[in-house]
Amino acid sequence: MLNFSKYHGLGNDFIIIDGRSDNNEDYSKLAKEICHRNLGIGGDGLIIIKESHKNDIRMQIFNIDGSEAPMCGNGIRCFAKYVYENDILCKDSFIVETLAGPVKIRIIKSDGKESIIQANMGKAHYKGEGIPIGDEKGFINKEIVIDDTPIRISTIDLGNIHTVLFVDDLDKVDVDKIGPMIEKHDLFPNKTNVNFCEIIDKQNIKLVTWERGVGKTLACGTGASASAVISTLIHDTDNHITLHLPGGDVDINTENEDVYMTGPAEIICKGIYL
Amino acid sequence: MLNFSKYHGLGNDFIIIDGRSDNNEDYSKLAKEICHRNLGIGGDGLIIIKESHKNDIRMQIFNIDGSEAPMCGNGIRCFAKYVYENDILCKDSFIVETLAGPVKIRIIKSDGKESIIQANMGKAHYKGEGIPIGDEKGFINKEIVIDDTPIRISTIDLGNIHTVLFVDDLDKVDVDKIGPMIEKHDLFPNKTNVNFCEIIDKQNIKLVTWERGVGKTLACGTGASASAVISTLIHDTDNHITLHLPGGDVDINTENEDVYMTGPAEIICKGIYL
Repeated sequence: MLNFSKYHGLGNDFIIIDGRSDNNEDYSKLAKEICHRNLGIGGDGLIIIKESHKNDIRMQIFNIDGSEAPMCGNGIRCFAKYVYENDILCKDSFIVETLAGPVKIRIIKSDGKESIIQANMGKAHYKGEGIPIGDEKGFINKEIVIDDTPIRISTIDLGNIHTVLFVDDLDKVDVDKIGPMIEKHDLFPNKTNVNFCEIIDKQNIKLVTWERGVGKTLACGTGASASAVISTLIHDTDNHITLHLPGGDVDINTENEDVYMTGPAEIICKGIYL
Repeated sequence: MLNFSKYHGLGNDFIIIDGRSDNNEDYSKLAKEICHRNLGIGGDGLIIIKESHKNDIRMQIFNIDGSEAPMCGNGIRCFAKYVYENDILCKDSFIVETLAGPVKIRIIKSDGKESIIQANMGKAHYKGEGIPIGDEKGFINKEIVIDDTPIRISTIDLGNIHTVLFVDDLDKVDVDKIGPMIEKHDLFPNKTNVNFCEIIDKQNIKLVTWERGVGKTLACGTGASASAVISTLIHDTDNHITLHLPGGDVDINTENEDVYMTGPAEIICKGIYL
């Protein structure tokens, strides 16, 4: 018997449990069981609330395959809503310890089923492991050939390796075909996430992300952040921009060195796992 | 706010709600929302408990796409467990009203998370709509050519149209390829479910079902029932037989005119849908 809640952020869904008084729980095993779509409650991941010795609170997150993830943009908004609404932290801005480092959270609005939450997604890195060698600015707007067609891509690290490309009409792009061709291109021995962006205007971008090892997803927080950073660089879009993802909208602010993402988190159900 | 439970039978999972005091609920809309794997709780279907004017209790079942299903072998075991354990009916055998007619239920064993429940699956019909024209016995053990290879199939109606074929080694059969070729064969203008059976001995059959419009599934109750009926006819297997499905085991008894299926139903979680 285990108390749980199920939340989602832009269609990325999580089972959340309060593990502050747990000892030696095998969360990897629990994640595989509880996230199973038919035999368990069903979710993309399991999030556990833990006490932190460094920051205000600690988030652990396990994927459906049992592996532990360092961070997740959609997951941390769900985590923050849970922590805020269950009075675990009685303040509307706090710092969450994650395997990827501390993440600053601000509760923008919280009244009922859906909340709007801002998370500091960290800094973009232009060079390093996983990013192809480019020039002094990194690997930005470089031509490669995919399916006999030259295209221009940019790759940065925002916790995960993200490659961004711009298209004229997202509806006409075969993401299921081109996505894996870029994901597994020789330039990326450890593969890359691929973000297909269509610029609507200076404040709006339509985005579909092909996630490494997963495929097309409803929403990817780090992908949206990386896409906003690259759009500003190459296409001079505004620093404060809305990205329209299949799962919903997310706002990205790249004014400061850190990237801030603001988006929804919604509760679906709560109960007892038997 | 809606009280719910999630159950599964052999990996076929259902959200169950008590709708006995509901008035004019739009269950089709609710099914699409609550069964959504990312935005809802997630399930193959929504089951609603209703008062019956004809039998002991009534089951309504809606698929994830919002369509109402007449009956479901795995679903009715989950329904029966819920009704029994929540003291809605205080007896261990009862009759459930469904769109496919009354279904007799017997609770064989019920102690905690998993119960074993028997359901009367009705009679097999050998002729009628959806069954190809054969001879006086129906369409039993008839040769057709699939992928340039002659194979023998049998088709009966057990609430749904089921075609059964026997193979030597189920692990070596490309169900994803052959399944749809039989499903959409010219003989079946309205398509057919396809059951691939490997006979282990007189009391045991390994079975994989390709469900019409769905694909390979973990378990299909009517498919298991049809396979047992045809095995007894063609291969002289016992009247009381165990079928080993990817989702688990189910016992089928074809001794009497009606087919009886006995299998598990398990509770996963219960709570409040918000």
